[in-house]
Amino acid sequence: MKKNRSNSGIEPENMNRIEGRNPVLEAFRAGKTVDKLFVLDGCTDGAVLSILREAKKHDTIVNKVSKDRLDQMSQTGVHQGVIAQVSDYKYAELDDILENARKKGEEPFIILLDQIEDPHNLGAIIRTANLAGAHGVVITKHRSAPLTGVVAKASAGAINYVPVAKVPNLGAAIEELKREGLWFVCADMDGTVMYDMDLKGPIGLVVGNEGSGVSRLVKEKCDLVASIPMKGDIDSLNVSVAAGVLSYEIVRQRLGVN
Amino acid sequence: MKKNRSNSGIEPENMNRIEGRNPVLEAFRAGKTVDKLFVLDGCTDGAVLSILREAKKHDTIVNKVSKDRLDQMSQTGVHQGVIAQVSDYKYAELDDILENARKKGEEPFIILLDQIEDPHNLGAIIRTANLAGAHGVVITKHRSAPLTGVVAKASAGAINYVPVAKVPNLGAAIEELKREGLWFVCADMDGTVMYDMDLKGPIGLVVGNEGSGVSRLVKEKCDLVASIPMKGDIDSLNVSVAAGVLSYEIVRQRLGVN
Repeated sequence: MKKNRSNSGIEPENMNRIEGRNPVLEAFRAGKTVDKLFVLDGCTDGAVLSILREAKKHDTIVNKVSKDRLDQMSQTGVHQGVIAQVSDYKYAELDDILENARKKGEEPFIILLDQIEDPHNLGAIIRTANLAGAHGVVITKHRSAPLTGVVAKASAGAINYVPVAKVPNLGAAIEELKREGLWFVCADMDGTVMYDMDLKGPIGLVVGNEGSGVSRLVKEKCDLVASIPMKGDIDSLNVSVAAGVLSYEIVRQRLGVN
Repeated sequence: MKKNRSNSGIEPENMNRIEGRNPVLEAFRAGKTVDKLFVLDGCTDGAVLSILREAKKHDTIVNKVSKDRLDQMSQTGVHQGVIAQVSDYKYAELDDILENARKKGEEPFIILLDQIEDPHNLGAIIRTANLAGAHGVVITKHRSAPLTGVVAKASAGAINYVPVAKVPNLGAAIEELKREGLWFVCADMDGTVMYDMDLKGPIGLVVGNEGSGVSRLVKEKCDLVASIPMKGDIDSLNVSVAAGVLSYEIVRQRLGVN
């Protein structure tokens, strides 16, 4: 993984790009997952408007950028004002995750990530989700690492087994899943020690960004706030370690171990 | 962290180097921690022999390399056949770790790492050690990531609180710590499920390399082999996640939670 880093400031995980008007339009129409669309700011001609309509239909993030920025990003030199960053991996829907639990005859256990930015952390959490028996992972459309080769590698292949859904609004996803009977527990240092909580039953575990934790609006949607007991001098665990420790507390309670 | 990567194949964590005969000899004599010494193969003049004697005294890893290799590594262009890779961080002794436990009036809890190669994993584990209340971390001299700026950053500063000892032989360190009353539990998929074990009391937790796990000789020195329950399709958790889950099982048992 280390050897793949380039000196250009562009990570290899961002390199999976489609450039030019027709290729980008085709990508949308072929059902490819476009993680991000970069369009020349101020460009309003017909072809670009068609692309923007497709982007809107698929709720794709659109970045309006300068020609210099596009030139810098371009690998082919012929971007025609449009570059799409596409995913190799297919995202799931929330329903796929619930169906995964139903098929296994288990109460849903879902890990929801509020803006995890580091692809290694995302990969490690997907890996944990697989082994801890979670039925899926939910990530946010904005400010999250998308599913890339780096994530796949860090997941040790778990990306092929764990459905990952990408949602525009994590709060709305929580509301939707609550209607399916799930309870939500959010990881936060200010919470109740995890051992003192009942984490059995259909559950969503919400873990927040590396630096800022779970955002306030998302936290307010959660039923419970859980903390990991901490003895040390520093503030917090690595986010993938914290997700692992909390996931395994859920595993322990589900197994009825005491 | 990502932005610091260079395109040369030399990681920034390897960039903390001292070059030239006098500077390297001075580094040894000033008590700096030399993680690795690179010496021109076949070079036998007096100054180099003095450096090799110092290296032997400090049990430093010596790599005999070609002039091309040294030229390639050199940042100053005047290596004079000798380059030392030094650490910014001071390593502790096993005694310092035991003393840390004694000072706190706690039974020792030590995390031993059998050849963890990724500096991000090492940093995340040091971070976990701090928050789970471990009294220190032991790493191996060979085939381990040394303490570097990358490790320090991944540790979120925990490197300044957790004593880290570097030993030439992990099996010998385990024997030495057994004489101090510690029990050793090794993480391995083939072990007994961790919930079914008594992990209270003075304990050393041994976690193995990212790819190959705990080596056979080290495993044989351990009293217990513990596994994390796994439901999924893939083989193993990320090593820093596994170390976190096992450390927190020790925390749980020490807290008497059930």
